[in-house]
Amino acid sequence: MLEEARSQLSRISKRDDVVKAWVARHEDAVILDAVEGAPPGSLHGWTIGVKDVIDTADLPTERGSPIYANRCTGNDAACVAGARAAGAVVLGKTVTTEFALFTPNKTTNPHNPDRTPGGSSSGSAAAVADNQVRAAFGTQTVGSVLRPAAYCGVVGFKPTYQLVPTAGVATLSHSFDTVGWFTKNVTDSKMMFSTLVDTNLDEPTRIKKIGRYLSHQWEAAKPEMAEVMRLGEKKLSDAGIEVVNVDPLKHLAPVFEAANTVLHYEVVRVFAWERKNHADLISPLLQKMLLNGDKVDHRKYRAAQLVLLKARNLHDEFMSQSGLDALITPSASSEAPSIGTTGDSVFNRVWTALGVPAIHLPTGKGPLGLPVGVQLAGSMWGDNKLLGVANEAEKVFGVTA
Amino acid sequence: MLEEARSQLSRISKRDDVVKAWVARHEDAVILDAVEGAPPGSLHGWTIGVKDVIDTADLPTERGSPIYANRCTGNDAACVAGARAAGAVVLGKTVTTEFALFTPNKTTNPHNPDRTPGGSSSGSAAAVADNQVRAAFGTQTVGSVLRPAAYCGVVGFKPTYQLVPTAGVATLSHSFDTVGWFTKNVTDSKMMFSTLVDTNLDEPTRIKKIGRYLSHQWEAAKPEMAEVMRLGEKKLSDAGIEVVNVDPLKHLAPVFEAANTVLHYEVVRVFAWERKNHADLISPLLQKMLLNGDKVDHRKYRAAQLVLLKARNLHDEFMSQSGLDALITPSASSEAPSIGTTGDSVFNRVWTALGVPAIHLPTGKGPLGLPVGVQLAGSMWGDNKLLGVANEAEKVFGVTA
Repeated sequence: MLEEARSQLSRISKRDDVVKAWVARHEDAVILDAVEGAPPGSLHGWTIGVKDVIDTADLPTERGSPIYANRCTGNDAACVAGARAAGAVVLGKTVTTEFALFTPNKTTNPHNPDRTPGGSSSGSAAAVADNQVRAAFGTQTVGSVLRPAAYCGVVGFKPTYQLVPTAGVATLSHSFDTVGWFTKNVTDSKMMFSTLVDTNLDEPTRIKKIGRYLSHQWEAAKPEMAEVMRLGEKKLSDAGIEVVNVDPLKHLAPVFEAANTVLHYEVVRVFAWERKNHADLISPLLQKMLLNGDKVDHRKYRAAQLVLLKARNLHDEFMSQSGLDALITPSASSEAPSIGTTGDSVFNRVWTALGVPAIHLPTGKGPLGLPVGVQLAGSMWGDNKLLGVANEAEKVFGVTA
Repeated sequence: MLEEARSQLSRISKRDDVVKAWVARHEDAVILDAVEGAPPGSLHGWTIGVKDVIDTADLPTERGSPIYANRCTGNDAACVAGARAAGAVVLGKTVTTEFALFTPNKTTNPHNPDRTPGGSSSGSAAAVADNQVRAAFGTQTVGSVLRPAAYCGVVGFKPTYQLVPTAGVATLSHSFDTVGWFTKNVTDSKMMFSTLVDTNLDEPTRIKKIGRYLSHQWEAAKPEMAEVMRLGEKKLSDAGIEVVNVDPLKHLAPVFEAANTVLHYEVVRVFAWERKNHADLISPLLQKMLLNGDKVDHRKYRAAQLVLLKARNLHDEFMSQSGLDALITPSASSEAPSIGTTGDSVFNRVWTALGVPAIHLPTGKGPLGLPVGVQLAGSMWGDNKLLGVANEAEKVFGVTA
């Protein structure tokens, strides 16, 4: 463990100027001491990065906004406390976009500094991809774990909505905010999961049937994504797994728009204090979002919530009746785009809004030589099953991040 | 408004030694200045109390625990920011039990200092009941708004789960935590609601049919509660409203236990940091709860969440098919018990777990001369309708708090 930590710290000292994944870090000596003295547990001596919207007792949580510069709460978020209790060592706070929204921050894609690492969990995805840390926490409200995982080429897992407490995590849109994490492989992702839920859930899973789901949003995909999906499916088929096509599901058609309505309405209320007292420190992108949110009245919000409620039920029914172990679906619409945006979350929003667990698995490189991969989406509270499926799928894909 | 505030401050100076509703207050002069200079809005010049688990920019948030003594976050919770933007003035922070759980704090029942005000929103309910403030925010995770409202004899409203953002509110059990409020009458409660949802939802409601629901927990009720329910129903019937009996609903039978399982599992994770670092400052009652929570593994938790998911769907179906405008059901098992507990939340847990809106309406006095009343429970996202029903019911009951 100590050797791994040393190698990570040396990687950071070499690469931090380019990748810029960190907002705040402990001194190297402090980290090495902590790793050496780490308590026993399932994450014994693991270094972890913590997205800077998640509180830690020993470092500030700035939420990617000057409004919260140097803000210390003095206590750990629930997920951080859980990881520390199992022996993990917080290496530092990772860069987030402003309030985990869409305005890019300083982090670059470790595979090419002219490309975005994705967002909003930019630093967490980049730091894991660049071997600067063993695992890192992120959050997903729209596509903030799956998309950066795809662009950076690591495993990104978003559990069932609220499975991991959001206590100590800055709210963005309470109907969707979900704590997730980045790792180099599914084994590590499973270890984070079983640590946080405090149960060994390692039931072996043999995949029988996977649904290929291009979704209502498929037209947003760049041509090369068809090839990514085709190759992923082919590898699964070649391994003897049945892959069946699932046409865009009628019950999911209104989810994208409803989720957008709910997000906008909630953001207006969640950031009421910041808007009133620090309007000058809010980015133009968020300002615009707040103005759009002002146009969403309670009737629209309530109607959108009822749409989501219904869709969740119908999707649960569909998943249990179809006999599908998971859906395979795009994680992103392309390889990582140029720096200056955080990319497009078009293929993530629906699964976040449904609250189902989802995981990104790298499958190789795209035409630009940047990472590509696929998303597997499971059923509400079926996290353990999805991680089992992902474990098998990872072997089939034969790609390690 | 200024006169009302002066009268409230004078009431506090006379009664605070006995009622002990406040943890922290602004100076009288500061409050009067703020009321005088309050911005226009639907809550123009209203004084409000804020339960001490809800952040305010200008006063500490101690969460009823010495672990958080003098803790200032420097910003307003979303609900507080919303109320202030509409012209409300924060008078102070009201007493909460430790972390909004079951260990009583110093507040007494304004009707009799030997009786509990209920909990966990003890100070908020007592301050409104004692005319010390116009309205007060509370939170409900089990029965922390409805029960103190019942014991103190005020209107207590718990909206649909997550309708009001919990941003800036200390987490207790994220699957249930709900921001609610106390007022002297339904009109004020509706005004708080339409302010926070930022839409005038005042659709007139004529009650047609109410379901009388004694619930699976009815045996916990003291004999006098049968009379309270009987009188409430009689007044509604006399006013020409159809009241039909609803036998304990099969789909609600497992909800009480499932909610308890979820609460215990979540509390262990939410308070992981406090337990690890400040075990000596945690009350014996919470210590015991944490030990019980340790016994709930992830399989039990997941099973309980699935029970709740199913019950919510079946209850929604029941409510929409039955044609009932609301259920009338007990708010509490008795008049306020002696100080030393916060009373029994047995009649609140199921509605909180379902996520449906619920409101307590005072209907008179019980055999001990303490306030009694009834609970009305509505349908998920049917808050506006429930408040309309409550408005009509309040006229029928003819009782003002």
